[in-house]
Amino acid sequence: MYGSTVIRLAVAGASGYAGGEALRLLLGHPEVEVGAVTAASSAGARLGDLHPHLLPLADRVLEHTTAELLAEHDAVVLALPHGASAALAAQLPAGLLVLDCGADHRLVDPVAWKTFYGTDHAGTWPYGMPELLTGPLTTSTTTGSPKQRDALVGARRVAVPGCYPTGISLALAPGFAAGLLEPADVVVVAASGTSGAGKGLKANLLGSEVMGSMSPYGVGGVHRHTPEVEQNLSGAAGEPVTVSFTPTLAPMPRGILATCTARVRPGVTVAQLRDAWHAAYADEPFVHLLPEGAWPRTADVLGSNAVSMGLALDERVGRVVVVAAEDNLTKGTAGAAVQCLNLAFGLPETLGLPTTGLAP
Amino acid sequence: MYGSTVIRLAVAGASGYAGGEALRLLLGHPEVEVGAVTAASSAGARLGDLHPHLLPLADRVLEHTTAELLAEHDAVVLALPHGASAALAAQLPAGLLVLDCGADHRLVDPVAWKTFYGTDHAGTWPYGMPELLTGPLTTSTTTGSPKQRDALVGARRVAVPGCYPTGISLALAPGFAAGLLEPADVVVVAASGTSGAGKGLKANLLGSEVMGSMSPYGVGGVHRHTPEVEQNLSGAAGEPVTVSFTPTLAPMPRGILATCTARVRPGVTVAQLRDAWHAAYADEPFVHLLPEGAWPRTADVLGSNAVSMGLALDERVGRVVVVAAEDNLTKGTAGAAVQCLNLAFGLPETLGLPTTGLAP
Amino acid sequence: MYGSTVIRLAVAGASGYAGGEALRLLLGHPEVEVGAVTAASSAGARLGDLHPHLLPLADRVLEHTTAELLAEHDAVVLALPHGASAALAAQLPAGLLVLDCGADHRLVDPVAWKTFYGTDHAGTWPYGMPELLTGPLTTSTTTGSPKQRDALVGARRVAVPGCYPTGISLALAPGFAAGLLEPADVVVVAASGTSGAGKGLKANLLGSEVMGSMSPYGVGGVHRHTPEVEQNLSGAAGEPVTVSFTPTLAPMPRGILATCTARVRPGVTVAQLRDAWHAAYADEPFVHLLPEGAWPRTADVLGSNAVSMGLALDERVGRVVVVAAEDNLTKGTAGAAVQCLNLAFGLPETLGLPTTGLAP
Amino acid sequence: MYGSTVIRLAVAGASGYAGGEALRLLLGHPEVEVGAVTAASSAGARLGDLHPHLLPLADRVLEHTTAELLAEHDAVVLALPHGASAALAAQLPAGLLVLDCGADHRLVDPVAWKTFYGTDHAGTWPYGMPELLTGPLTTSTTTGSPKQRDALVGARRVAVPGCYPTGISLALAPGFAAGLLEPADVVVVAASGTSGAGKGLKANLLGSEVMGSMSPYGVGGVHRHTPEVEQNLSGAAGEPVTVSFTPTLAPMPRGILATCTARVRPGVTVAQLRDAWHAAYADEPFVHLLPEGAWPRTADVLGSNAVSMGLALDERVGRVVVVAAEDNLTKGTAGAAVQCLNLAFGLPETLGLPTTGLAP
Repeated sequence: MYGSTVIRLAVAGASGYAGGEALRLLLGHPEVEVGAVTAASSAGARLGDLHPHLLPLADRVLEHTTAELLAEHDAVVLALPHGASAALAAQLPAGLLVLDCGADHRLVDPVAWKTFYGTDHAGTWPYGMPELLTGPLTTSTTTGSPKQRDALVGARRVAVPGCYPTGISLALAPGFAAGLLEPADVVVVAASGTSGAGKGLKANLLGSEVMGSMSPYGVGGVHRHTPEVEQNLSGAAGEPVTVSFTPTLAPMPRGILATCTARVRPGVTVAQLRDAWHAAYADEPFVHLLPEGAWPRTADVLGSNAVSMGLALDERVGRVVVVAAEDNLTKGTAGAAVQCLNLAFGLPETLGLPTTGLAP
Repeated sequence: MYGSTVIRLAVAGASGYAGGEALRLLLGHPEVEVGAVTAASSAGARLGDLHPHLLPLADRVLEHTTAELLAEHDAVVLALPHGASAALAAQLPAGLLVLDCGADHRLVDPVAWKTFYGTDHAGTWPYGMPELLTGPLTTSTTTGSPKQRDALVGARRVAVPGCYPTGISLALAPGFAAGLLEPADVVVVAASGTSGAGKGLKANLLGSEVMGSMSPYGVGGVHRHTPEVEQNLSGAAGEPVTVSFTPTLAPMPRGILATCTARVRPGVTVAQLRDAWHAAYADEPFVHLLPEGAWPRTADVLGSNAVSMGLALDERVGRVVVVAAEDNLTKGTAGAAVQCLNLAFGLPETLGLPTTGLAP
Repeated sequence: MYGSTVIRLAVAGASGYAGGEALRLLLGHPEVEVGAVTAASSAGARLGDLHPHLLPLADRVLEHTTAELLAEHDAVVLALPHGASAALAAQLPAGLLVLDCGADHRLVDPVAWKTFYGTDHAGTWPYGMPELLTGPLTTSTTTGSPKQRDALVGARRVAVPGCYPTGISLALAPGFAAGLLEPADVVVVAASGTSGAGKGLKANLLGSEVMGSMSPYGVGGVHRHTPEVEQNLSGAAGEPVTVSFTPTLAPMPRGILATCTARVRPGVTVAQLRDAWHAAYADEPFVHLLPEGAWPRTADVLGSNAVSMGLALDERVGRVVVVAAEDNLTKGTAGAAVQCLNLAFGLPETLGLPTTGLAP
Repeated sequence: MYGSTVIRLAVAGASGYAGGEALRLLLGHPEVEVGAVTAASSAGARLGDLHPHLLPLADRVLEHTTAELLAEHDAVVLALPHGASAALAAQLPAGLLVLDCGADHRLVDPVAWKTFYGTDHAGTWPYGMPELLTGPLTTSTTTGSPKQRDALVGARRVAVPGCYPTGISLALAPGFAAGLLEPADVVVVAASGTSGAGKGLKANLLGSEVMGSMSPYGVGGVHRHTPEVEQNLSGAAGEPVTVSFTPTLAPMPRGILATCTARVRPGVTVAQLRDAWHAAYADEPFVHLLPEGAWPRTADVLGSNAVSMGLALDERVGRVVVVAAEDNLTKGTAGAAVQCLNLAFGLPETLGLPTTGLAP
């Protein structure tokens, strides 16, 4: 039973957007007390200057990120640049829950890691997407399909998923697990709000440049989330799945809209498709399949830990189209971390996590 | 002690933005159970179609607004068009808490009502702005300044303030109550997100028209919130205060930024001004005076019940400039209603009300 | 030589966004004099109230749309709802240039028309996309590839293309004409600004609903522009091409970003692809292939008649990805009409048409 | 007569937003040929990478800014940081037209310059606001009121006005020149798009920070445009005018909406006010007083050289409220420069300058 002990949690890399969102959620979590908030170059700054929206923490001062300081807590959220968490994590006690929002420990294949990130692989941690189907369904497992959740209960190391892979993987995994989709020729085009690109000072991220404008980036399969998506979908399918992925930058601060299409196997009907998705997510508190003909909007999951999706079968061309909306900072990053924290500590999985969006 | 009984609350006018925001907040309120959600022309619709962001209520169906139905609850939020709540409220039991988000019962002066709204005045209810100073400070009351809060504890009828008057009144009342400001020549220019104009279908509110564009409206003292602001500031000053108010429409869905200026009395210093504001709000959970040199952004109070303000004295021209940011739907409407509900039922005033904004 | 006679041009349906954009461009056209501006329900209104950005025409009053009035001109732009132009056009003199921004005369296949539009087909007019390759290249035509331009010189009836088909068709046609792409399994996901949905009063187009939000619509192959795209690409390929097309609504007033992917035939290299696109567009004033690694932004073609595109080959999955940006109202509608007017009257094709965008 | 010789013009500081806008306008100017485009740290860059919207100049390479290079032209636009143009300009030939978009030569009072800019004053140049009334009207000058235009015809040095002062000064000057307004207690609150803050990399200008948010800056009379506005209005009034000015940052790339209020002298009527404004601007091609009850939107002057304004008298409080909309980069900067170039070279004042905005 929870309620007896409060979890003391530190946030490392608290100056960025992921760290700020973690703090926002944790301020509303009844079993968590925010301990140290740390940073690298921003150490010494007032949190009220960096994240003025976090009013209750305005007078907190950022401390330097050190393993010693973090080790004094029950749990730590690492919101560091990709590649920076492995070395730090290696110095943290095994009993401390480490929720890594970076990419360092997500991939299983060291070659894929090296190809897309350029450094040596730091090893793989339990992947923090509880709702992900992890293997093909067989008749015997239809009502008890294997999900990633099992690997997260009681875990002390969690690789929090990337923002794009969250929506995309959840959008397509049911079809692959159910054997309804062809493993080749998956095509995904996703639009993300600018916070997904972080708080770094780049000319192309200035408000003057992004407002009123859409643009692609990382075209041609070079975006680092591609192997993560393929790993997830291949796991669900039980065979290699390849994906053409094009991300675009949309004129909004938050939110991802992922349009995911895959070829259906011959004879597959829309009813079969909806059944598979329904079976996968009907009991999930954070993943919602909208009624037929309804489509998600990113505004509807703003600040929420929910992923909302709609599905259609384009019979003319033999493709299923699933469009998923999520908040890249919430379910796409910090919300997933909190969800995994709940699982790790045996708390109700939904504790402290909003399922309503901030609209309009 | 609270916790023993849950408050059953109905929302009338649930199809609009104010009603939707009330539901969003009430879903997170630990002592409230959402009862009937009602509407006029939208009765029969699925809430999931009107407010897809309210995922937990998606399958609720809107009922027709009737006094009988509302009377079955402990409390009701009326989110109706201005002028529509008086007749309905008259049919509701005296013991039922009625939180009227409309303007009908805000003004004290029936002539001002008739001038700005065109109908007969329906009477005045306790005004739902707990933090508002209601009279000039004297030496004896410096530490116990009169506030509107007293009139709300245990109330069963509450006139929830208008969105603009909330930020503007709180921004300037401390200076008037402390006798530091001239009662004439107050000038306020405020920018509001489009949700302040409601969900009605008007060409000037289309996304194509408002995105990337600023425009004024209600120029020349004709906006209906003008007498409400003057009533509040006159109350704090203990003498008539007149205000030049110009609202503008900004390309954002939510938020109000009110730039409020008034002439200071001769010899008034910035220290005196900051002291007066500090004395008024230091203990308020929802009203924050930022440190000298810091200024609020509407994003920082998005979805939050907080009003954040900065203050400067322009000595060259003898004017204080106070800029206040609020979320027009939260502290500006539905959050204030929930705050008053807490006061009315003897609950902690902050229960269920966020003080963190959704940024970036 | 031009310059001797001014073309008197009427705009029918001048109250909407397409009509407004036509007037904006024509005001800057040195050989055109704006004649009657007409409308249906808005007849009698001041143009300054409907299109306040068209300052030089502010005091013009909209007249009722009649064939008699239009017939007094040299040319007419029809910016009417889809399905409304056929009947009107049938009453206009054969010698009058009719530029139909509606869909009525775009499709060749009457069955496709009936399937997607529900009415009987009105017949096919010359299609107003001068740069479109209209057939597969052979060795003999490499330097003189057939384009749609030939059908437009001197024409007196022009079916102006749809906004989405413009960017999509130009993005992929060179690859099909050069035989480099597989005709099956083309996947296109495009984001459009809200003006593409017109000026009609719909709740989902309110600024409060669209700002900060992305959403899909017309998913599953049901969008009416699908057969138009397939017609264009099939023409270039010389065999039937099928397309999975998903449009999305982006939080910006103008602009389309179309992400277009197709499987390349075995062994096709990126050099071959770039050569084919370069051959197609190097001499085109309005279609630009960006250097390798550069990608278009919709802001860069805002108000311009240019289509800007980037191209990459994703070798891992064997797909070319071409991302094209256009202004849906300019090159996507009214600019194309003006371009066709220039061709029809033997004027320089670029006359009066901007190739610079309004950025930032 | 013009048309015989083309003006060779260089743009120094071409990497920023003002320089980019100058190039955009000059590309459409029939008598100008764009010569050197120069920069400091961006020298060597391709213009297509810095300003991809300037398609016709995409392959131009930025040269180093030197006096020698600029001196080879007939005219030069200086779009440099404030304080940087004086030294450069001092090295340029007297016969070369220098259009300085910076502040260096705008102020007459060296003390005001030093107070607001901190350096020594570089001297005053003819101020580039042709429509500005430069003195109080007398009966004899009612039909020939003095305007700044006279000082610009044939000039070879022009101090292009600041963006805010343009809208504000034109909004209020007619009332001061006509003696209808009190010189004290002018209050102005203005909202600007983010391009007004330039292209510098600052965290508060990131798209994630500005989208969906309004915020003030430079509050309390410290904004550098304050003395420029006071200089202009004092000139029109013939006596010192003081202004409380608060700028705010709006979530849009371009545009300024200035809400300007001043106390009217006793007995002044709205008819007198409208007459004064009408007399001032009826013959101006770029300054428009909207009909009574109509108000400007920034979208309507996007990319246009026009200032559009509405006026109301708030009789309750004795204040006139004039709201003016302009594009901060066009009429607010680069458009004004081109207008002054036309005057300087005896060309038609409107040559190459759009009066239609890009809406929606």
